Parts: sequence; C-alpha cells; structure tokens
Amino acid sequence: MYCFNSDYTEGCHPAILEKLIETNMVQTTGYGMDAYCDEARQLVKEACNRPDADVHFLVGGTQTNLTIIAASLRPHQAVIATNLSHINTHEGGAIEHIGHRILALPTTDGKLTAEQVAAEWKKYDTDPAREHWAQPKMVYISQSTEIGSMYTKAELKALYATCKEIGLFLFIDGARLGYALGSPDSDLTLEDVANNCDVFYIGGTKCGLLFGEAVVILNDAIKPDFRTIAKQNGAILAKGRLLGLQFGTIMKDNLYIEICRHATEQAYQIRDAFLANGFKLITESPTNQQFVILTPAQYEKLSQEFVLSLIEYLPDGNYNARICTSWATKDEEVAKLIAMIPEL
Amino acid sequence: MYCFNSDYTEGCHPAILEKLIETNMVQTTGYGMDAYCDEARQLVKEACNRPDADVHFLVGGTQTNLTIIAASLRPHQAVIATNLSHINTHEGGAIEHIGHRILALPTTDGKLTAEQVAAEWKKYDTDPAREHWAQPKMVYISQSTEIGSMYTKAELKALYATCKEIGLFLFIDGARLGYALGSPDSDLTLEDVANNCDVFYIGGTKCGLLFGEAVVILNDAIKPDFRTIAKQNGAILAKGRLLGLQFGTIMKDNLYIEICRHATEQAYQIRDAFLANGFKLITESPTNQQFVILTPAQYEKLSQEFVLSLIEYLPDGNYNARICTSWATKDEEVAKLIAMIPEL
Amino acid sequence: MYCFNSDYTEGCHPAILEKLIETNMVQTTGYGMDAYCDEARQLVKEACNRPDADVHFLVGGTQTNLTIIAASLRPHQAVIATNLSHINTHEGGAIEHIGHRILALPTTDGKLTAEQVAAEWKKYDTDPAREHWAQPKMVYISQSTEIGSMYTKAELKALYATCKEIGLFLFIDGARLGYALGSPDSDLTLEDVANNCDVFYIGGTKCGLLFGEAVVILNDAIKPDFRTIAKQNGAILAKGRLLGLQFGTIMKDNLYIEICRHATEQAYQIRDAFLANGFKLITESPTNQQFVILTPAQYEKLSQEFVLSLIEYLPDGNYNARICTSWATKDEEVAKLIAMIPEL
Amino acid sequence: MYCFNSDYTEGCHPAILEKLIETNMVQTTGYGMDAYCDEARQLVKEACNRPDADVHFLVGGTQTNLTIIAASLRPHQAVIATNLSHINTHEGGAIEHIGHRILALPTTDGKLTAEQVAAEWKKYDTDPAREHWAQPKMVYISQSTEIGSMYTKAELKALYATCKEIGLFLFIDGARLGYALGSPDSDLTLEDVANNCDVFYIGGTKCGLLFGEAVVILNDAIKPDFRTIAKQNGAILAKGRLLGLQFGTIMKDNLYIEICRHATEQAYQIRDAFLANGFKLITESPTNQQFVILTPAQYEKLSQEFVLSLIEYLPDGNYNARICTSWATKDEEVAKLIAMIPEL
Repeated sequence: MYCFNSDYTEGCHPAILEKLIETNMVQTTGYGMDAYCDEARQLVKEACNRPDADVHFLVGGTQTNLTIIAASLRPHQAVIATNLSHINTHEGGAIEHIGHRILALPTTDGKLTAEQVAAEWKKYDTDPAREHWAQPKMVYISQSTEIGSMYTKAELKALYATCKEIGLFLFIDGARLGYALGSPDSDLTLEDVANNCDVFYIGGTKCGLLFGEAVVILNDAIKPDFRTIAKQNGAILAKGRLLGLQFGTIMKDNLYIEICRHATEQAYQIRDAFLANGFKLITESPTNQQFVILTPAQYEKLSQEFVLSLIEYLPDGNYNARICTSWATKDEEVAKLIAMIPEL
Repeated sequence: MYCFNSDYTEGCHPAILEKLIETNMVQTTGYGMDAYCDEARQLVKEACNRPDADVHFLVGGTQTNLTIIAASLRPHQAVIATNLSHINTHEGGAIEHIGHRILALPTTDGKLTAEQVAAEWKKYDTDPAREHWAQPKMVYISQSTEIGSMYTKAELKALYATCKEIGLFLFIDGARLGYALGSPDSDLTLEDVANNCDVFYIGGTKCGLLFGEAVVILNDAIKPDFRTIAKQNGAILAKGRLLGLQFGTIMKDNLYIEICRHATEQAYQIRDAFLANGFKLITESPTNQQFVILTPAQYEKLSQEFVLSLIEYLPDGNYNARICTSWATKDEEVAKLIAMIPEL
Repeated sequence: MYCFNSDYTEGCHPAILEKLIETNMVQTTGYGMDAYCDEARQLVKEACNRPDADVHFLVGGTQTNLTIIAASLRPHQAVIATNLSHINTHEGGAIEHIGHRILALPTTDGKLTAEQVAAEWKKYDTDPAREHWAQPKMVYISQSTEIGSMYTKAELKALYATCKEIGLFLFIDGARLGYALGSPDSDLTLEDVANNCDVFYIGGTKCGLLFGEAVVILNDAIKPDFRTIAKQNGAILAKGRLLGLQFGTIMKDNLYIEICRHATEQAYQIRDAFLANGFKLITESPTNQQFVILTPAQYEKLSQEFVLSLIEYLPDGNYNARICTSWATKDEEVAKLIAMIPEL
Repeated sequence: MYCFNSDYTEGCHPAILEKLIETNMVQTTGYGMDAYCDEARQLVKEACNRPDADVHFLVGGTQTNLTIIAASLRPHQAVIATNLSHINTHEGGAIEHIGHRILALPTTDGKLTAEQVAAEWKKYDTDPAREHWAQPKMVYISQSTEIGSMYTKAELKALYATCKEIGLFLFIDGARLGYALGSPDSDLTLEDVANNCDVFYIGGTKCGLLFGEAVVILNDAIKPDFRTIAKQNGAILAKGRLLGLQFGTIMKDNLYIEICRHATEQAYQIRDAFLANGFKLITESPTNQQFVILTPAQYEKLSQEFVLSLIEYLPDGNYNARICTSWATKDEEVAKLIAMIPEL
C-alpha cells in the first residue's frame, strides 16, 4: 500500500546514495572536520550569501532544536512558540529536559505574529513580579509550519523586526524548509531566511537526505562553543562525513529546492482535487502537507488504498487527515489518489 | 500605611518568637536531625493521623515544590496543573529548570477537576504518538488555590480517585493550607487532606512562621532519599532546628488552624462589606485572600490608606485588586478598611 | 596517506551498503517501528539468547550513554566509572548536563575491579554524612576499554556479583564490543555479556556500520518508557529503518564478530612487530587499539607515511601513540606499517 | 555535653535576636525588596568599598553555591575546585544537578594554587579533542577552606591574576569568611577579598546568623537576572527582611569580624594546647576549625565530655577529629577542654 502519511518514508535521493557509494572506502577524520563537511559548509554559506555564518551539521530535528536552544539561553530563559509547535507537542519534553520553559501561544494557522510576540513580551515586561517569571529570550517558529502553512516575507520581516527591537533571538526550525522555499507561492529565498533570523536550519531528513539538519548561525552571540554544546547533547556524529556528503550533494545545482518544489506541486494537485470535489481543508497549505477533513467512511475508503496520517478526531466526528508528498512521491500514485477522490 | 497586600508582611507569631528566644543558646545537631525537629515531625504525623508518613521541613514554597517534583518524577514525566498555578506563573521556570514539563490546564476558579485530569490523560494515552510526549505523572493543586478558592472534600476525593485509577501522583501545595482548613466553609480536616493525596505540605511562611513548609509524604514511592534530593536542591537548612521549633510550636493546641481561622473570618468581613456595597469579586473565595474588582479611582482612593496588591488590569479598564488578611492582621485595621468601602 | 588513527575513518561494510541501496525506495514507518528494526531486534535477542531483553537502536555513543544513564538514575544518583572512561573524558560533560555526577576511580589498565566498586560503596555507605553525597547507583565500564584492554569472564562476573549485592546497575559501553568479542584472547561470548550486566550496547559506529548502537536492556527497572527518554534526548532517528537495516545485516552469519576478529588479528601483528623490535606499550591490549610509546623522532618518521593518533605527551618526553585497525583496514597497509617498524 | 563538633550548633548572636524581636510586627514587602535589605546591601558595599557591587541575600551555602554557578556558566562549562571542596563532597551532587561538571584537583592543604589552575587550563587548551571536554570557566575556592587553612593575600592575588589572564571567573565561598578575616594571621581585609575575585559571599550561617549568605557580585557578566536565577532555584526567601535584618546588624561596628576573631582566638588556644602536649594536626589551621589526630582511646575519652566531629578514619588507625569554635563558644568550656588535653 502506498504511503502518503509522512515525508520520511523512503531512504534518500539517488544522487546522495550514489555519493555515499562512491566515497564509502575513502578515509576521513571524524566529527565533521573532514573535507566533505568543509565543502558543504561552504555551499550552505554561499546559498545563504552569508560568509559570516557558522554552519553545523546535526542528525535530527529534536536534537537540533534542543542544541540550538541550549546554546542560546541562560538557565532562566524561555522560548516563545505556538501551541502547535513541534517543540511543544512532539519532542518528549526535550526543551524542559534541558531546563527551559516553552511559552506556548495560541495559533490557528500554525504561525506566530509579530503582534503576539510583542504582546507576550509586554505582559512579561510590565508585570511587577516579572523577576519571578521565566524570561522570554527566543522565538521559535517553523517554516513551513507543523500544519503546512508558511510565513510570507512581510510576516517574517515584521517578526524579526519585533524580535530585534525587544531583544529576542528568532530561531526558524526549517525541518521542512525546502517545501516552503520550493512552494510556487513562496516569496522568500534562502537568503531572505538567513537575513531575517538569528539562527535557522535547513532540514534534510524530510527533504531527501537519509538524515541531517544544517544549522546556520547568523548571530554571533549563539556561535561560541556550539560544537561542544552539540557534543554534550550527543549530537555530533562520529562519521560526520555522512552529513557533509549529503548536504554537499543536495546543496549543489539547486537540487534541494528542485526536489521539494516537485513535491509541493504534487501536493497542490491533490489539494485542488479535494477542493474541486467539495472537501474542506484544516488550513490553507501552500506546501507539501495537506490536512483534509474526511468523514470516517471517506477515511476508511481511502485507507484501503493508501496509508494516510490520522492527526485528530474533530469535535464533529470527522477526521483531520494528513496527506504528505515528498521528494520521493511517484506521479502515478498521485494520479491514482486523485482519481479516487470523486468516488469518496 | 497598613498593608493588606500579602500574608507575609510581618515576622512570626509571638509564640514562635518566644520559643526561638528561649532556645537560642541551646546546642543542637544540624540539618533537621535535632530533637526539636523530631518532636515537630511527631506532632505533624499525629495531626494527620498518619504514623506512616515521612515528614520533612523545608524553607520556602518554590523550593518545596521543586524538591517534591524532583523526588517524584522520572526525567520524561510531566506535572498537570492549572494555568494559574504557582508553579506555572511565579517560580521563574523552576520546574522546567529541573527538567520537567508543566501541562497547564485552563481554570477560572483556580481549581482542577477530576474530569479535566481524566481528559488530559486520555488525550495523552490515546495519541498514537504518545511516546513523543512528556508523560503526565503528577497532578499539582493548591489548597487554598492561588485565587483564594478551595476544594471541597467531594472534589478532592474525586480528584484523588481519578489520579489513583490512572496512576498519577496527587500533590497538594499547602502554602496557604491553614487558611483553607480554618475557613468556616471548609469540610476538610488535616487528616482528610493526608488521606486524599500522595504528598502535600503544611505551609508555614504564609501562616505565622518566619519561614518553613512541612512536607508530608504518604506514598512510599516518593519517600526514598528525599533528604538527599532536598540537599542537592539547596533545600536543607543547616540550623534545621529553626524549622522544628517553629512547627513544634504551631502544631500544638491547634494553634495553626486557630490563627488562620481568625484571618479568614476577617477576610469574610471585608468580603461581605464589599458585596454589601455592590462590588464584584473575581471569584468566590472562602479563605484569606479576596480579589475585588475596583475602578482605577476606587483603587487609588483605597491605596491612600492601605497597601493593596494590584493583580491585573482587566480588559474593561478596571483593576483586579487582592486584599489579604493573615494571622497578624489587626482587627482595628480591618474595621478601618470596612468603614472606607461605602465611601469609595 | 593511510589512516591508522581511528576505527571510524571509512563508511560502512559493503554488505550494509548493499542493503541500503537495495531498500532505498521501500517505504516504511518511522522512529524504529518498521519491519527491518523488528527483525534486527529479534536477531540481537537471539544472539544474546535473551528473549526477555528490550532492544533499542540509537545513533551514537555519547547519545547512547546519556540516554541509558538518564533512564536508569534518579536525580541524586551517580555513576561510578574509571578516570579514563569515555563519559569522564570525551563527552563534553554530557552526564553532568543531564544532572548526574560521575565518581571517577583511578585505573591504570582501563578497568574497574569488583574491589574498587565495593570500596567506593563502603566509603559512601559508612559516611555519617552520606545523605549529603550523590548516591552511587550505576557502574559504567567499557568493553573493550578506552585503552584497548578487556575484561575476562571472571572479572566481569565478579564485578556484576558485587553490583548486584550492593544494588548497583552494571552498564557496559560496548562501542568497541566487537573487537573484544572477536579477540583471540576473549573468553566471553555475547551471551555472557548479556548475562552479566543490567544494560549494555553493541557498538556499530566503530565496528562496520555507518552509525548505530544497539542497546540491550536486561533489567526490568530500566525498561519503562525508554523510547520517550531517548526521544527527549534527541536520540530517536526519524528514519529508524537505517539502524534496523544495518544491525539486521551485521548480526547475521556472525558478521559482526568476524569482521572485528580480522581487525584484532591485524592489530596483533602490529603489536607483535613493535614488541619484537623492542618498543614498549602503554598497556597490554588484546583488541584493535594498540598504544605504543614512541620517541618524537619515531613518531614523526612514522607520521610521514601513516596517520596516527597522538594521545598524550608522556612525562619523559616520549609520545603515547594510538594505532587502530578496523573492519576496513587493508592487509597491505598493515604489512607496510610493519615493514617500517625496524627502521624507526 | 558541650559541642565542639561544628560552628552552627546555636541560634544567633544576641544582637541579631534583639533586632528580630524589635521588628517582628513591622510590615514590609517581600523577597528582599524591603528597607532592611536595602540598608544591609549598602553596608556590605561600604564594607567592601565597592559601590558597584550587586549584593543579594540567600539562605544557605549549597543554595548559594549552585545559584552563583548557575548564573555564571553556560551549559558546557565546568568549575575547577579542590577534591576537598564543599561542592565536591557535601552537596549531594548539586552542581551536577544543575548541569555542570566539577573538575576536582588534588590538594593536601585545602587550597588551590595559581599554578594548578594554569596547568589544568593548559591541559584543556592544548588537547586536540578539547571540543569534547567540559570547558573550565570558573574557579571555586573557600576562604577559610574546608580544612581550616586560608589563602594569603599573595596567594589570592596570584590566583586571581591567573584566572583573569585565562578568562576564568574566580568565586570565593565565604561560608566561614569571618573566621578567616578575623584570624590573627590574616593579611586580608574584606576589601581585599572583593578586589580579588569575580564573586564571593559573606557567610552568615556559620558566623553568628540564624542563616544567610550575602552574595557580592563584582563582575558585571554575572549580574544580569541573578534574582530570577535565584528564584528558579528556590533561593529567594519570601520574608527576605529576615536576611536584611541579620546582615544589617552583623555588618555594623565590625561585629561580624569581632565575633569571629574571638572564636579564632579560642581555636588557637585549643590548637596550642594540643601542640604543647605533642599532638599532631592534619593541617596548619589559622582559623576556627582545628583537625587533630587522636588515637581511638583519646577520642573516646574526650568524647565523654565533649561532642567532637569524627571526620575520617586514618590509614594508621588513628582518627581525624574536628574541633570547632564559633561566635557562641564559651570561654569556660574552652578552658575545660584544654585542661583535659594533658590527661588524654
């Protein structure tokens, strides 16, 4: 049965696999200090047009989130995020485990606004007992968000301006950054992202790599000793070359964006077919994840042919079902899925 | 200007001060292993009618909360509390600092219900991705609550039954336990409290002591090595005798309840005067804290004679003002305050 | 220049690479819940002859050490290890970062003895102020050790008997377990290891995998919620299949032991050549790491042809140089190295 | 039986008790923001001649140590101390609990030298794998030390110069600072202490207060948000006035030094009597703690009249016994003890 439930169901893009095969018996030093990593770091900096950035390759998303937050905050400081944010809902309490509070703000579209952040800060800043609060110091957002939406350039600029004014770090979780940058509706480039935050990462695991996230640190305050902090969180891969090889491959010839663009286009076809047949979506998603409202019967019927992800039982008895495409999704399976929609 | 803003504005009850004077030059061993502490522990166990309990004396509320939670949870476990709970709002992120997530549930009356806890557990337990969540393992409530309300015996029993059924610890923060037990409207005794939770503490700081909280551990799972865990959190007082002396005094002859009862009665007089003059309260409080809605002008006028606590600017422009009584509140000042109310 | 400086300089064993290629486009579920992981877990249990074991696949050594220790200890508990242990010297303070103290005991041969552990416990247990100490609760050893030595069956049995008697967990870091089990001088089997500790891991990163450590939990006390604790430490790989595929390959047909045995045999040839030419070793190593004392001139000369690892400047001005073989080491390079030794 | 086993066996100096009695019913604001604390902070700054210092009053030693260290270090940073240091031996793993490693260096006289610190830094700094180490960032010393010795001005200046050169914070635990400053052999003033470290505290608990430690922060890098960090460690006393009142009393008219000087003089009399009768001391102590080597029989005989502290069983079968004086020690008991010595 074909899987549309997630964007990490296959191995990796063929170009990466080829590179791993080709270099398998080459000897290198460990921990990301090899020439493959050097080259990949250089490619990332060039793609961001930020030669001043520090680039580090870590293995997975939760690990990357906790390492960046550990490197950025003093013990009493907190991170502002949405209630739907990955760090707030799917990381086993990792951020609290390293000692930091998440201040979760409500969202319906998966995004935080500059106004929300300013208001949260003001609430803190004007409280006579603010000394007895965890102090907001970082804003965490995801691009694209956990429910498929994405920030526009104007939204991101406004958010970053607010953060800078207040003195908060802006951190962008880019686990699915490729699907956002590759969206036909995106008005952001990688360079725009790099210029509108303090630290972000280019997600690999969900965008064609076996695993890997490329951390890009723009703000000097977050740079010192990042590797040691990663090490103490178990986030330095011994054969770091594997990360360098993968990012070195995907960051060439715009491959990262290209494969994600194709996936987003497939998601659009699926979305449009649902809309054309009168279905409703949970939120407007211009990226590779579509959240469709299905009746239990519709869900069951579709599930006989495809693996979907049941996100939530809705209060009215219907289901919130996630349908994901990825760099690996086959066009013929998309067509087959679309063909079923009118019959649901 | 007389203070009604808090219940810890004075030193301690005269009987305690006398005891400290009387014993000042007596030599004892340290860290709570002295005879005064032994006696006080015995008195607490007797008052609870729980000879099996472990009793420990710590210095302050935040310290006690974090020590109990540290002693109860494994690293991935979380504590359920209200969004208004002290641990969620006034402890600088102490619980997260020791690695645990707070699952804050909404409340309007300051209380958690058994239904809320059961629903939160079910949400966790039925989630296919529950392995990626912080695991609820403890429920934290306050008696009286942060906004002056209190649990009835039926409510507490229902909550504890639910906790036991699910396998959660129930922890009662009793920083203001005396004001609840001493409330004319209370249907709970200290023994009832001890029999309907896994761990709680008898608050001293806000109820007549210079400082001090008496932790009562009922559940054997929380008992091992509690003193070492307290020590590593900086919560073992070198001259532990000071805690034994204070609790040994206040736990005799029902003094703890008596002095708190008087304070609650004073609070009732104030409350009734406000209600009789058409003022509205934030919530119904049968304890020593009353939260009154005042216009800015009323607040200013009252503040010329008394120190109040401005808790919150309400959306309609009015103020949520806290008026506290305590074991130390003078009847003549209560009378003076009441006399002003009709003129506001 | 050929590298003898470490045992993780290449990619992975060809059989593993082939498996990754073959399955690359197969769709699976994530987080180690796929069929490849199921099969690999089964193989590990069979190899250990412990159907009751819990098996988990994590990515790297530091991550695995900190996850196991986090899952085993309460906050005030400490882990006993040697002063040379990996957790004490090369993990950036990871164990302290998650809140636990390392009690580092002196060693010259890299090993802990049952007597040392018993003595350390007694020191703790008989101290009148033991409540003010971090409490020893786990013993951490490495097999083979950080300096290449290994425990005999008698030593391991004695250590485990002592741990059980006292009530300590015994945890074996098996990052290089293959090289110990594959040593011609080993009197231990994988089954012996599993039967003489509470938890251990089968190291993959240094023994032929791209990455990966297979945790085997024998003691029921360490089993609950291990996956959530791993998740909160960022240690659950999204495409967990990659770990299942690798361990599923290497655990078949004794491949794991075979490739390590060959490496250890190569190390023996190198060792014997050094000894035959009058060189001295830091310690007796029956595994793939040999620590040779070289003069600076000898070190320089050898370094013109091979990459070695300079571990330490010795007090007498000489160097402690590590020479490692691995599953990937070429026989002709070993021969070339040996041929140089008489000329140093 | 009279106690010489510790310096915190009584309550507090009569002048302090009087102040507490006198102010008991005065109303003040909480958390150390009252006028008594303001005055005491001013007195401390004046005594140190450092108007730029930040002064905070905390309750106890372990709490103060962990709060200062938490406020000073990033997560991967470590603190250098002696193996005999209080944080290394008597605080239940508190420093590791908040995530930091202690690098314990050997000492026989209880002190660290500038050379030791420089050597430890060099070992770290020159290690090719230093990224995988916890990074030294603070040096912790005690004045007087845990075994009664004390730093001279020259030693302290050398240590601080080394710390500044390397970029380490110097932190002085002054739990017994009064006994050092009050020693007839001291060449240091409080001002000297303040000018030769980044942060220190004036110990109250062991020097005449019921409890309390006055933290003096000299280095601006440690100042921000100290109160919030203290709060999250449960170290902010609700009735902070109690600390202000005590330090406000003891810092006036040189009382702090005077009462400690008397105790040290008593200790000298005891020391001299032991030496005159041929006894040996563990280390030369110019402060209030004397560590005497006694045979078991001598120890037993003395213990029939006085409570001593048995620190350690020495390898030769003798005992290391601590004899402490304090601000509360009675001259007649000292005389009685001295009279017994020739008869042991």
